[in-house]
Amino acid sequence: MMATKEEIAAFIVTEFPQTKCVVREVGNGGATILHEVGVSELRPGGTVSGPVLMEVADVALYVAILGEIGIVPLAVTTSLTINFLRKPAADKSIVGVCKLIKVGKSLAVGEVSLYSEGAVEPVAHVVGTYSIPRRTA
Amino acid sequence: MMATKEEIAAFIVTEFPQTKCVVREVGNGGATILHEVGVSELRPGGTVSGPVLMEVADVALYVAILGEIGIVPLAVTTSLTINFLRKPAADKSIVGVCKLIKVGKSLAVGEVSLYSEGAVEPVAHVVGTYSIPRRTA
Amino acid sequence: MMATKEEIAAFIVTEFPQTKCVVREVGNGGATILHEVGVSELRPGGTVSGPVLMEVADVALYVAILGEIGIVPLAVTTSLTINFLRKPAADKSIVGVCKLIKVGKSLAVGEVSLYSEGAVEPVAHVVGTYSIPRRTA
Amino acid sequence: MMATKEEIAAFIVTEFPQTKCVVREVGNGGATILHEVGVSELRPGGTVSGPVLMEVADVALYVAILGEIGIVPLAVTTSLTINFLRKPAADKSIVGVCKLIKVGKSLAVGEVSLYSEGAVEPVAHVVGTYSIPRRTA
Repeated sequence: MMATKEEIAAFIVTEFPQTKCVVREVGNGGATILHEVGVSELRPGGTVSGPVLMEVADVALYVAILGEIGIVPLAVTTSLTINFLRKPAADKSIVGVCKLIKVGKSLAVGEVSLYSEGAVEPVAHVVGTYSIPRRTA
Repeated sequence: MMATKEEIAAFIVTEFPQTKCVVREVGNGGATILHEVGVSELRPGGTVSGPVLMEVADVALYVAILGEIGIVPLAVTTSLTINFLRKPAADKSIVGVCKLIKVGKSLAVGEVSLYSEGAVEPVAHVVGTYSIPRRTA
Repeated sequence: MMATKEEIAAFIVTEFPQTKCVVREVGNGGATILHEVGVSELRPGGTVSGPVLMEVADVALYVAILGEIGIVPLAVTTSLTINFLRKPAADKSIVGVCKLIKVGKSLAVGEVSLYSEGAVEPVAHVVGTYSIPRRTA
Repeated sequence: MMATKEEIAAFIVTEFPQTKCVVREVGNGGATILHEVGVSELRPGGTVSGPVLMEVADVALYVAILGEIGIVPLAVTTSLTINFLRKPAADKSIVGVCKLIKVGKSLAVGEVSLYSEGAVEPVAHVVGTYSIPRRTA
């Protein structure tokens, strides 16, 4: 029932056609996403905009869940809590590392740590929940 | 100390140069933001993408706070919790209506209801906090 | 299908036998709960403890939901976000005012403002979600 | 500046005189708390009540922060997000394991996994923030 990294990456391209998120790793109840930062993602002062961080977290959660339950187009985010921790570097990609906490029949919960690439301290932390549609056997 | 709608709208354009958010109202501890939805904000099936909703909420909070304390460039989001409630209409703008709950010396808290324009039921609900830099008298 | 205030109050006593929460109002998509504050709810300095505030919010949400869908014993809290805003008065009851944002088939979402009785400014704000078991017709 | 487990345990007893929380471990940016479950913490059906879980998480965060910055009586919770994941066992203590994500000058952020003692899967997950008063050198 699990999906491979290649299957998920192809699916993400169709689901989020505008996204710059790239699937780097998936499996073992987690996923890692990379998002390059360009001028259009920056705010004055050289901060990566908050919605970009939220998008990376959202995709990381989705990819991690697909890695567990297979390609399920109708899974949707139901909630997301983000804490902004440090100013991201303007010239580094954002890396989102998701670890799932629970994958139930109807709800999945995971957390995502977001980093400026190469940094040890996270720039933000997210906890999110996804609703999973009932699957027919 | 308060800022006018025009001052805030001009400031938002410099702070979020890429945003499509437009300031519709500000004052009385609140703000209303409008965000047109184009093809680049849609996901397959005609849903407005989650990060767009979060951006509207974030800007609505910021605008409402600026309306209370004046133009403060260094105010930053510290946390944001979003609950997704209903599928937004693909062909309607997103409207974000913010009501501030507290504006303290160092922290402001507010909630935002997000709607597809013209609808009565919200598509998402956000609670967010902003850190306000210390102001020198 | 809706339940009366008396039915809900009796049900809360059986569901939360230790609670000091009293149902003051219910209906119209909301509820108001009162919780007396005694020595056992105080912390040094005269602050009402955080878990007491969370309990009042949790019960207010539950009561408001029961007011909409009737007595459903298996509804359970799935998430709760609380922002602490001001120090509660040590010698006042806590009042929780809940407004439901959505009551869906499987999920209900609401917000609760918590006050020291008689005060205008809230001491805390909560957004919570409840999972509603599938009902058989 | 750090405080020992014994100093923190003694401080928690004075700060939370009614609590059943016991400090099991503290240090290295984290803390582990144990809370025995008695009849007064149960709800019908044998579930540990939500506010008990929130209290354990709140104390675990506080203890972990004190372990990093020393005994600071005025640190207060500013926000807390809890996701309930599984039904806790009625006859097991609750164990809260906190890992701090950030300890800044004015704000600390941490996450707490809550378990029924001996279980591998958490019953709830919490992210919380504490406001730290300015310290004079």
